[in-house]
Amino acid sequence: MEAVNVGIVGLGNVGSGTLTILAENASRIALKLGFPLSVKAVCSRGVANREIPSSLGAVLKTADWREVVSHPEVDIVAELVGGTTTAAEIIDAAIAHKKSVVTANKELMALSGCEIWERAISAGINLAMEASVAGGIPIHSVLREGISGDRVVALYGILNGTSNYILTEMERRGDSLGTVLAEAQRLGYAEADPSADIDGFDARAKLAILAALAFGEKITPADIFVEGIRRISPMDFQYAHQLGHTIRLICGARQTAEGLILSVRPALIPSSTILASVKGAYNAVWVKGAYGEDSFYYGRGAGARPTGVAVVSDLMRVAREIRSGSPERVSPFAHPRLGEYKPLAVTEQRRAYYLRFRVEDRPGIIAALAGILAEKHISLEAVLQEPCETKNDLPFVITVETTSEWAIREAVKTMSELDFLLEPPLALPMELPL
Amino acid sequence: MEAVNVGIVGLGNVGSGTLTILAENASRIALKLGFPLSVKAVCSRGVANREIPSSLGAVLKTADWREVVSHPEVDIVAELVGGTTTAAEIIDAAIAHKKSVVTANKELMALSGCEIWERAISAGINLAMEASVAGGIPIHSVLREGISGDRVVALYGILNGTSNYILTEMERRGDSLGTVLAEAQRLGYAEADPSADIDGFDARAKLAILAALAFGEKITPADIFVEGIRRISPMDFQYAHQLGHTIRLICGARQTAEGLILSVRPALIPSSTILASVKGAYNAVWVKGAYGEDSFYYGRGAGARPTGVAVVSDLMRVAREIRSGSPERVSPFAHPRLGEYKPLAVTEQRRAYYLRFRVEDRPGIIAALAGILAEKHISLEAVLQEPCETKNDLPFVITVETTSEWAIREAVKTMSELDFLLEPPLALPMELPL
Repeated sequence: MEAVNVGIVGLGNVGSGTLTILAENASRIALKLGFPLSVKAVCSRGVANREIPSSLGAVLKTADWREVVSHPEVDIVAELVGGTTTAAEIIDAAIAHKKSVVTANKELMALSGCEIWERAISAGINLAMEASVAGGIPIHSVLREGISGDRVVALYGILNGTSNYILTEMERRGDSLGTVLAEAQRLGYAEADPSADIDGFDARAKLAILAALAFGEKITPADIFVEGIRRISPMDFQYAHQLGHTIRLICGARQTAEGLILSVRPALIPSSTILASVKGAYNAVWVKGAYGEDSFYYGRGAGARPTGVAVVSDLMRVAREIRSGSPERVSPFAHPRLGEYKPLAVTEQRRAYYLRFRVEDRPGIIAALAGILAEKHISLEAVLQEPCETKNDLPFVITVETTSEWAIREAVKTMSELDFLLEPPLALPMELPL
Repeated sequence: MEAVNVGIVGLGNVGSGTLTILAENASRIALKLGFPLSVKAVCSRGVANREIPSSLGAVLKTADWREVVSHPEVDIVAELVGGTTTAAEIIDAAIAHKKSVVTANKELMALSGCEIWERAISAGINLAMEASVAGGIPIHSVLREGISGDRVVALYGILNGTSNYILTEMERRGDSLGTVLAEAQRLGYAEADPSADIDGFDARAKLAILAALAFGEKITPADIFVEGIRRISPMDFQYAHQLGHTIRLICGARQTAEGLILSVRPALIPSSTILASVKGAYNAVWVKGAYGEDSFYYGRGAGARPTGVAVVSDLMRVAREIRSGSPERVSPFAHPRLGEYKPLAVTEQRRAYYLRFRVEDRPGIIAALAGILAEKHISLEAVLQEPCETKNDLPFVITVETTSEWAIREAVKTMSELDFLLEPPLALPMELPL
């Protein structure tokens, strides 16, 4: 049976993985689809020196993406260049040429997924973006198909492999963030500028996409509160363990009676919850549905081949839809305009909190801090202190009962003016058993 | 836009959950699909006294499934009666009437899925069976769509919630299987005849379906080695913990250089592996792909609403395909006729093993057992013994290095003749870090 033809723009990490799988796994793909997927064109800057697997047959090699997008035989364009500038042009041009599009681009889809999807529907083509979030976890497939009959009420994710690697290594070895980060950079696991990973921006773009899929709203990164992991230290793991918890960079989207709360921030989670078992560079997503209760998805967050599987699986899905003449009809971002998902500021959330202090020891410290908490109507739960030899840099932890983030921020602000504090208190929410 | 119409046969646990979701979640379903799903007919024996949610509008209530299957307005028949007799008739009749079919029937699909799928393709209708395995985990969607570009090399599952509940309660409380089972029966978690659950037959049917989907072969329950959990005792958990492991009823399907090994059996798994965190009545599936590496899926194994989500999500998928005129074209059971998946007897598998003995203490026991192992060319790894007061029923454990199951069975057979043994040795494979 006649092939569906693919053009690949971008032969970096993900593009190379995609090409390898399309070449090596071609006969299985053809058996599953009932027809072959054929690569007709590839584009990258250094394409001239690029070895293309000979089993793929004649493939146009070009450094100009316009030649792929306008190629008369190409049915699907895989946009694998990333970023929000050229990638947007490539996708727009592909849609204008009535080509279907598969993309691995989280920044662009987080920022403009809603509009791109609308253009795809108007043009009568197909669009897929499984690889844009958590490469090795088919979470788009799960949310769009697998549990589409459910109503999602909460979604929690660990969506940045680098920060999860750093946190779990700090936890395992007791080393500081700086030490683990430097090592990760040396090994190539972390970028020279680590901000996107450790300040939570990468995770935030991914949460914007997943929350949009789960709740059917237009959610962009700017709608999401973000706090990175820079202030987490090994002693925080010691205290968290005392409390039966661990610390992860948690991407959370949950419906409350008052609205939808979205955040990316380090949080304490119970050690017994399955999210706590996510270690190293893995990603995971935990979903709570009104009917299906809790389900959990786990896999590689990145990597040429895991992300390549997501791209190839999308190519197969789109090829099937092209073959059956079934273009996109409903945007995944637009479903429940039911008015249920009014966004709510994170300051309105109610949680128990972990407050960690570093102080110069002197009498009256607990009294002063407890006084401020009482003033803000926050109930103190426990005071924890690990044995410590120095008096001039003494860490300890206060946990408080469920209260509003608003009250905690007010308390932290007032506390920060106390002269015995060496730095402002670190406040982390304690997430409920997931 | 015009609705796609559904007829439901069977209003037990799963049917009730399905009906509730279709009624309560109707507006969200319509927004996601772009058209409504409408229930036109329901069938069950006691249907006369059955309250149907009024929001569903006019619904034919009948005790005769033939009226649903032949109903001129019904587009999709949901077969939710279970078993292999009437259910097979219902599905056959639906296909004969050119109705698409959604089924939650594991026994039937495990036994005849391959043939039913072929008939569906010939008839040009759609078929879906997400709810047949691990109701709360969209594992069909994952294997058929989400990671379809990968080549699965291994799949391990915990697929029977009742036996997992029993094992994890034994582990947590130290109670015997009999005690926990009796309690589970009292609470309605386990059947009066627990054999399907604790002897592994229910899990085997589910593995037959998942292995067929993962490897594209016709696999029936009879192809799968099965051993239940009746011989596991609290002391086995003590020894497993000493070894850094726990014990679960593991459904395994893995490709080796020599062929595909399929089994359902209690096994030791490392406590650090994510499968070990699956407790209570949850199910989980761990998949290893040649390209995507490992991914893991977890959720409720059963229950009216989680399984109802699977049925409703299937109805939505099939409705979408009906609307776009896209019948089934390729059976999920038939993809890689590439000759890679020759089944291999479980006796050919190579693993480390855990051997647990109960003996009447006397000198020379270890020498006798070690002698038999040496005779079969099996290397002893460690001897473990928990403190024990009685001399006439002394438990202990020998672990051995990687060897063939064949050799272990020979050794166990020879050992069973020794007169100091109170019962034949219990041999459990030690699964590799997953």
